[in-house]
Amino acid sequence: MGRSGALFIGAGGYIATAVISGALALKKGLCAPVGMVTGLDGFAGLDLAAPEDIAFGGWEIRRSAPIENARNFFRGVQLPFDILPEIGPELTELQADIYEGVATNCGRAIEALAPALPAAPLKEQVRRLRADIRDFKKRNGVDTAVVVNLASTEPLLEMKPCHDTLKGFEQCIDGNRADDVRAGSLYAFAAILEGCPYINFTPSNSPLVPALVGLAGAEGVPVMGSDGKTGETLVKSALIPMFTARNLEVLSWEGFNILGNMDGMVLDDPENKESKLMTKDRLLGKALGYSPHSGVHIHYVPSLDDQKTAWNFIHFRGFLGAKMSLQFIWQGYDSILAAPLVIDLVRLSLYAKDRGEAGLMPHLASFFKAPLGVAEHRLGEQFAMLVDYCNARSKKR
Amino acid sequence: MGRSGALFIGAGGYIATAVISGALALKKGLCAPVGMVTGLDGFAGLDLAAPEDIAFGGWEIRRSAPIENARNFFRGVQLPFDILPEIGPELTELQADIYEGVATNCGRAIEALAPALPAAPLKEQVRRLRADIRDFKKRNGVDTAVVVNLASTEPLLEMKPCHDTLKGFEQCIDGNRADDVRAGSLYAFAAILEGCPYINFTPSNSPLVPALVGLAGAEGVPVMGSDGKTGETLVKSALIPMFTARNLEVLSWEGFNILGNMDGMVLDDPENKESKLMTKDRLLGKALGYSPHSGVHIHYVPSLDDQKTAWNFIHFRGFLGAKMSLQFIWQGYDSILAAPLVIDLVRLSLYAKDRGEAGLMPHLASFFKAPLGVAEHRLGEQFAMLVDYCNARSKKR
Amino acid sequence: MGRSGALFIGAGGYIATAVISGALALKKGLCAPVGMVTGLDGFAGLDLAAPEDIAFGGWEIRRSAPIENARNFFRGVQLPFDILPEIGPELTELQADIYEGVATNCGRAIEALAPALPAAPLKEQVRRLRADIRDFKKRNGVDTAVVVNLASTEPLLEMKPCHDTLKGFEQCIDGNRADDVRAGSLYAFAAILEGCPYINFTPSNSPLVPALVGLAGAEGVPVMGSDGKTGETLVKSALIPMFTARNLEVLSWEGFNILGNMDGMVLDDPENKESKLMTKDRLLGKALGYSPHSGVHIHYVPSLDDQKTAWNFIHFRGFLGAKMSLQFIWQGYDSILAAPLVIDLVRLSLYAKDRGEAGLMPHLASFFKAPLGVAEHRLGEQFAMLVDYCNARSKKR
Amino acid sequence: MGRSGALFIGAGGYIATAVISGALALKKGLCAPVGMVTGLDGFAGLDLAAPEDIAFGGWEIRRSAPIENARNFFRGVQLPFDILPEIGPELTELQADIYEGVATNCGRAIEALAPALPAAPLKEQVRRLRADIRDFKKRNGVDTAVVVNLASTEPLLEMKPCHDTLKGFEQCIDGNRADDVRAGSLYAFAAILEGCPYINFTPSNSPLVPALVGLAGAEGVPVMGSDGKTGETLVKSALIPMFTARNLEVLSWEGFNILGNMDGMVLDDPENKESKLMTKDRLLGKALGYSPHSGVHIHYVPSLDDQKTAWNFIHFRGFLGAKMSLQFIWQGYDSILAAPLVIDLVRLSLYAKDRGEAGLMPHLASFFKAPLGVAEHRLGEQFAMLVDYCNARSKKR
Repeated sequence: MGRSGALFIGAGGYIATAVISGALALKKGLCAPVGMVTGLDGFAGLDLAAPEDIAFGGWEIRRSAPIENARNFFRGVQLPFDILPEIGPELTELQADIYEGVATNCGRAIEALAPALPAAPLKEQVRRLRADIRDFKKRNGVDTAVVVNLASTEPLLEMKPCHDTLKGFEQCIDGNRADDVRAGSLYAFAAILEGCPYINFTPSNSPLVPALVGLAGAEGVPVMGSDGKTGETLVKSALIPMFTARNLEVLSWEGFNILGNMDGMVLDDPENKESKLMTKDRLLGKALGYSPHSGVHIHYVPSLDDQKTAWNFIHFRGFLGAKMSLQFIWQGYDSILAAPLVIDLVRLSLYAKDRGEAGLMPHLASFFKAPLGVAEHRLGEQFAMLVDYCNARSKKR
Repeated sequence: MGRSGALFIGAGGYIATAVISGALALKKGLCAPVGMVTGLDGFAGLDLAAPEDIAFGGWEIRRSAPIENARNFFRGVQLPFDILPEIGPELTELQADIYEGVATNCGRAIEALAPALPAAPLKEQVRRLRADIRDFKKRNGVDTAVVVNLASTEPLLEMKPCHDTLKGFEQCIDGNRADDVRAGSLYAFAAILEGCPYINFTPSNSPLVPALVGLAGAEGVPVMGSDGKTGETLVKSALIPMFTARNLEVLSWEGFNILGNMDGMVLDDPENKESKLMTKDRLLGKALGYSPHSGVHIHYVPSLDDQKTAWNFIHFRGFLGAKMSLQFIWQGYDSILAAPLVIDLVRLSLYAKDRGEAGLMPHLASFFKAPLGVAEHRLGEQFAMLVDYCNARSKKR
Repeated sequence: MGRSGALFIGAGGYIATAVISGALALKKGLCAPVGMVTGLDGFAGLDLAAPEDIAFGGWEIRRSAPIENARNFFRGVQLPFDILPEIGPELTELQADIYEGVATNCGRAIEALAPALPAAPLKEQVRRLRADIRDFKKRNGVDTAVVVNLASTEPLLEMKPCHDTLKGFEQCIDGNRADDVRAGSLYAFAAILEGCPYINFTPSNSPLVPALVGLAGAEGVPVMGSDGKTGETLVKSALIPMFTARNLEVLSWEGFNILGNMDGMVLDDPENKESKLMTKDRLLGKALGYSPHSGVHIHYVPSLDDQKTAWNFIHFRGFLGAKMSLQFIWQGYDSILAAPLVIDLVRLSLYAKDRGEAGLMPHLASFFKAPLGVAEHRLGEQFAMLVDYCNARSKKR
Repeated sequence: MGRSGALFIGAGGYIATAVISGALALKKGLCAPVGMVTGLDGFAGLDLAAPEDIAFGGWEIRRSAPIENARNFFRGVQLPFDILPEIGPELTELQADIYEGVATNCGRAIEALAPALPAAPLKEQVRRLRADIRDFKKRNGVDTAVVVNLASTEPLLEMKPCHDTLKGFEQCIDGNRADDVRAGSLYAFAAILEGCPYINFTPSNSPLVPALVGLAGAEGVPVMGSDGKTGETLVKSALIPMFTARNLEVLSWEGFNILGNMDGMVLDDPENKESKLMTKDRLLGKALGYSPHSGVHIHYVPSLDDQKTAWNFIHFRGFLGAKMSLQFIWQGYDSILAAPLVIDLVRLSLYAKDRGEAGLMPHLASFFKAPLGVAEHRLGEQFAMLVDYCNARSKKR
């Protein structure tokens, strides 16, 4: 495999900052690959790109220097400050690899973050994003680059027939029909056309519309999504099978999330929250096979910064009609949890591309809240799919 | 299959009372088979005995009428009182099937419950227990009866070479060496000799010593244990695989259990608590592959009665060294959770006996905190073992 | 003091049912006066009416027999069923003291509970309610009756100049201006005109408008409100002074309430929820002297029935800028907590009337989330006001 | 008032480090006086010494440089690292004011921290501690210095008649009876003899024995203790009055504390834990007036470092016998909570000494778990005692 790279949409956000800082810290031996699934022993047999050998870059709609982003992030997450000075010079250099992003039709909450962003016809935007990719690859001597969507959640895009076929989608672009696409679609389109594997780590539904998934398959490009499973939903997908295996009847499952990072701020807008709740709440009914009373609530609490705190109350009925409960309280740094998974997804996407795999990557289901094309919702079974994929390809076998 | 039965050691306790009341309520359509694993659709293909067709009885060291036990239980668990009057006559009749139990060498906490129990040579005790079994089977027209240990947890029995071989064990009995056996051993020995499948639902280690497991294999008797996995440990076995699958480093896992039933009272004696903590705490290191700081604490809080409340604090480390936490609070009625599993175990033991299976039943691992002869500790994988067993034997296949 | 009575608006609801059942159970020695503030030793010196000597009745817009309400209540709250049979006959007799209520302009959620309620001019409604009071008093030989509002929360009534003066208010009634009053105003008006002390135990703002508080003062009638402080807010008012006394800076205080009773169902309508959130959320800023980020959320979860469950997350800052947290989880039966306070308020209102006290009763501040005319919000100080009132009047002094 | 100072027993521990770092940070405007009770507006009228004008020093049995202690502390508590570099030079200079401590008869856990500490006759130890105090005062130009005990908790000292009178106590010292005193007694004796106000911020019972409290009164030296009320017990003292004011019956109050600092490590030894549990558990019965089932448990969990996490489960009974519960989870940095209170106590002790007050200072009750000579246990009332003291002496009055 040649030199590889990763381009992040939302390159100045907490997750991208954590990925880049973490990869640099790994390179210098300042931290261990904890939280990286591909760091588990079972993955040693795959010839995955080393995180420290990947070139990073991306797009950002806000003006902010990587070193400044890292400072805010390390403060917000209360990380040890002895790491930052060691990786400062590399973070400063990274500035050259950050391109100006697009925010077309992303809704008021996101557009408010970058009010002065110049508008351009959709076709021209796609052309520019493709040029950015080529520039990044050339400047960094990269053969294959993965594009990962880490941008704020967009409002839900209404699905229409035009999203089902490549022809329909191209007519949206060519006809400059900005209502039928969002920025997310443009990035995904550009990535696939440039042969870049594409990962949708957000709940936004505009990137991986059927037309683009089909294009990816045709062009030999692996893609996957949606919505990284980092916290509350991860715990849910571990607990639900317990209730089903014991034949306990879930009466109500109420989840309350409070968080204070940019993600929380954008999700505080009902327009954007709708996308998130779709991927978070859908899990329960599918996994249980019936629909108890349930709710997923997200509220913005600035003082928490990146420390997402979630309380779940699960009311269930057992033998002789007795009601019982399980509650959990999750306190995790969203970006710290997401970052190593992003590295995993980049490594596994590069690997798939290198082996000529194309279209959806169902073996990555365990990484997502709403895994495209996968009906299995139990965490254990999803993880087994990844292990099977790995074992089938492992050099040791 | 002919008529079948179940004999409970500790027949006046909450769990036995819940099993018997529940089976009667099921028979009269007063409750649903919620909480019974064998009530899941997948088990319809096995020809399992119907819970309402099983004759119940057992041994008890305290003097207490089944109807009185049920009254206390329904009050303690706050169950709807409209069930009890409907099943009262059957409960009263059950008195005839309760035999006087034995408490040999069970430690001060258990012996204090039945101070006037007459002593007898071990050999004589075994003989009497066997006679009880035959009497119960004859009187109820039962072909096969399962013996289930639902008694209070005994102090840990020190394992010696005499527990490894049948000859050694028989010398303990014949030589009346009461220090080397406990009541639990006598019941198990009697059950196996009478051809009764035996289930150790408690953490006591005196019943299924290697000598008796070997005897069961030789005599064509299925046996399994130990320690029913009903609450906190059930949740643990569902959550641990989440941490391993995500390569998150568990730093500390501290569990605090408070409960107020007879089980809690007996466990408040350090002598008896030791057995319990062995089966509860051992899980973590085995399942993780390393040993974080951990503790499992049990305290007797009478006002809670059967409502076990457990708080677990799980401290873990993620990417870039950040520390995070997951806490859960479990509030479940221990007996309500245990009872349907006991019915499952009775049904599956009867089935195994009927098919000529003998010795340990590893496919029942998911029911136990410390499944004998099974290294797998992930709940999902354990459940898959049961599903596989079921599918391989299902009439539909 | 002669014979006394209490009329409940919402006489078929859980709280009224708990009050009446509890008073009957107290009379028969089936329960202790736990939860009654006036049951504390310090109140022995006041000559308060005994709960068992008070005649109960009230209004209800739904058709439901008291005995049936009690059955639902005892089941929903999982109360011991041995009490109900003992008080059944008295509950059945109570039917005669339940009058048909009014629901004028109470919003869609409440009106949906009683779709067939006949409409009548406001003046006629007031006249009829007054007649009900006189009938109740006559039939039960009662000298003084307290009217207590236990009805579902109404939507917030927009305050206008007409609510400030008796003349303005009378013009609303006489002019049949149904938009400017709600049912709550009619009950309060009728009560005061009949010389009945009036307690607003709900957050509805239509009853104790300035015009009616003024009328009460002029007519020699004691009144007080609003919104009984039973659960989450009670805990808040106990904890807030801890933060102020320690000079700890509250950054965020987020409260999430889930409940499944009628109160919860009506509050699920945003129209009605607004009234509730006003009285719940207002406390924090007043008590702290500054306004941290805060939210109070209420969600209807039917399976919980009357068992309100509330999770509060309090984020605070201490020395050297360190962030810390306190969380609490409250699980209480709202009606069980409210009922003894209602008895307290009835007893203390009868006492005040008997002594010729009129208008607002600020010494009752500790009973309310939003005590009218009282700036003190610390629970300890509010309770001291009641103790002072009591000591000043105690016969022992 | 002249220049003032404070000498800490355990000067290298987290609390002393937090006090000293915090005072330096306050001086440089790097943090606000959050968490300091004397920072509240009401204290502006007292002429208290400014924290930044107090000279700090103390004793330590371990060899450790203040700057190194601060580095560990800032890392353990995840404090912003931008503060430390600013105060580094002053911390380095502080080394000169740290004297070698004594650990006589402090039990195995504490003695293990300083195995090589030279032994000396008790009389000689007292003489040396007095010389240290004089040296510190002279070198820093200090008129009055407060001695504050921040050392690890000692095992409980058995109280005997010799602790009741000065004569008896002096005979212990002169006769070198090391079994009847502990290091804590020696420090307190030396401090009082040198006219230094003395604060016992630990649960150890050896310092403020009746003989020494009497001596303090006679010598014109203010003293107070014991055991700073920083976390779980603080919350308890705020919540207990809520249950009493509402006449709710507390059935059980179970507290579980986990922590990972030096305090936690020493308390893990049962010998030392006994002292702590005495002051923590005693509160409940006194404050409620009856004794529910209760337990306070402390466990050492290293990964938590200074972040004490406490879960309390409070089971209570309300009207009609219904059982309900309140749980709280406290997550606070013990040292961060303690440090500003230590500054408060130093300021208020200096003030008391300056005004000629002597012996116990009951107005400081709100700062302690077990306030000497004070029966009041409600936080609100205790705080009112401090406010009254302050108002009576305020210059504005």
